[in-house]
Amino acid sequence: MIVLLTNDDGINADGIQALKTAFQAVPGAEVFVVAPDRERSASGHAITIHHPLQVEEVDPGEAGGRSFAVNGTPADCVKLGVKALLPEPPQIVVSGINRGPNLGTDVFYSGTVSAAVEGIILGIPSIAVSLTAFEDLDYGYAAKFAVYLAGEVFRRGLPENTLLNVNIPPLAEEEIAGVAVTRLGKRPYENVFERRFDPRGKLYFWLAGENLALNGGPDTDVGSIKDNLVSVTPIHLDLTNHVVVSLLSQWGLVAGKTPPKGGGIQA
Amino acid sequence: MIVLLTNDDGINADGIQALKTAFQAVPGAEVFVVAPDRERSASGHAITIHHPLQVEEVDPGEAGGRSFAVNGTPADCVKLGVKALLPEPPQIVVSGINRGPNLGTDVFYSGTVSAAVEGIILGIPSIAVSLTAFEDLDYGYAAKFAVYLAGEVFRRGLPENTLLNVNIPPLAEEEIAGVAVTRLGKRPYENVFERRFDPRGKLYFWLAGENLALNGGPDTDVGSIKDNLVSVTPIHLDLTNHVVVSLLSQWGLVAGKTPPKGGGIQA
Repeated sequence: MIVLLTNDDGINADGIQALKTAFQAVPGAEVFVVAPDRERSASGHAITIHHPLQVEEVDPGEAGGRSFAVNGTPADCVKLGVKALLPEPPQIVVSGINRGPNLGTDVFYSGTVSAAVEGIILGIPSIAVSLTAFEDLDYGYAAKFAVYLAGEVFRRGLPENTLLNVNIPPLAEEEIAGVAVTRLGKRPYENVFERRFDPRGKLYFWLAGENLALNGGPDTDVGSIKDNLVSVTPIHLDLTNHVVVSLLSQWGLVAGKTPPKGGGIQA
Repeated sequence: MIVLLTNDDGINADGIQALKTAFQAVPGAEVFVVAPDRERSASGHAITIHHPLQVEEVDPGEAGGRSFAVNGTPADCVKLGVKALLPEPPQIVVSGINRGPNLGTDVFYSGTVSAAVEGIILGIPSIAVSLTAFEDLDYGYAAKFAVYLAGEVFRRGLPENTLLNVNIPPLAEEEIAGVAVTRLGKRPYENVFERRFDPRGKLYFWLAGENLALNGGPDTDVGSIKDNLVSVTPIHLDLTNHVVVSLLSQWGLVAGKTPPKGGGIQA
């Protein structure tokens, strides 16, 4: 069984190293790491088309396997791993373990999640794993859970066009209250741009997103983390709002040959 | 009425200039352009958190209004525009006109669409507009349609968490067959990575995605473009696969206190 690991914190991050060690310990697993050569968080689903991708095979360390550092995004790494670096396509893509949560709206910006999205686009069952803290991190339990969940996915398969987004509370195993299958909650940010001046007196901005309180019922990812539960959210890639297709059809949009009188915007 | 325009081809691209001219001609419209200082296509929903965002107010040209060039992604531009640059939030965000289609799977990678996603996240009705060709481009009709559709959206509103993704065939107005409300089709790419060697003999890769045939019924964006119809696809931001939430709940996932015997991956 071939496993492709990637992340957005960069190939040397503790999270992916913990994941690698855990998967290497699984009998019969062949583990490949293809990950960004440096931190690529908040990279969304960017792919690199304007410059070449350079790949460096790096020392996989004690646990063995093969590791490749790429000067690209997490989505690049999955695409390149599947299409050019691995001897054959992996049976599963695991992205993480991210340092910090990927809850609610975070998934739009998350490089960790985007790697799993790319896996699904390429037809490979994929999961994204995040540890919901930024300090005093112990990836041990998260790595163990990732291996367990990967095994379940391998045995049962995943519905088409669906990845699993996993968030794990930063607790010792005995403090974890269980596992919840959740929907995405809301994780509003107060998007504050700090206004600063450079050494030449020129204004610039730096995003200083303040995370507001985690609100969400027990059925949401946000809520389950608050309750010390591992959150597993199925995320689909069908972005069409099928309900609104019908609604919009009633708008009677025209191609513009006969634009409505005074059509267009009236302020 | 305040309109925020952005794109991913860069502030000097013909597409956004055509859009600006068209919106400036609307009585009462106050038009702001906040766009990347250079091409940012395939940037997905990346945002810039690791370095500062620099903003340059540039000459808006004959049509007037105000224009800002930002060294960031389309999503950055919308966030910064709404939160820091515009005197008050816009009533609508229009992203484009993109040079080239954003159909089917393209929307995951598209900087044009990601700008509209950011608009929706910020609670502002948003549309993304693309012209489905790369050469001999005439943005005139596309800009006209964008103004018309923005007017409809302004009058009628959009359902929560839903943007409109518009693709326009590269035809003269009289050749446009009409408007179709569609779902996202499939636009498979054959992801070929070209293997090349740098001047020092080192291997590198360059993504050379070959676009396969456009397949899709008349109810899809892909199909409607083939039929010379303007395609309007409602895209929602609810990524939870609600059906699969129930399904996964039956898996009986455990937190790992009692991992199943031989649990995890068996190769």
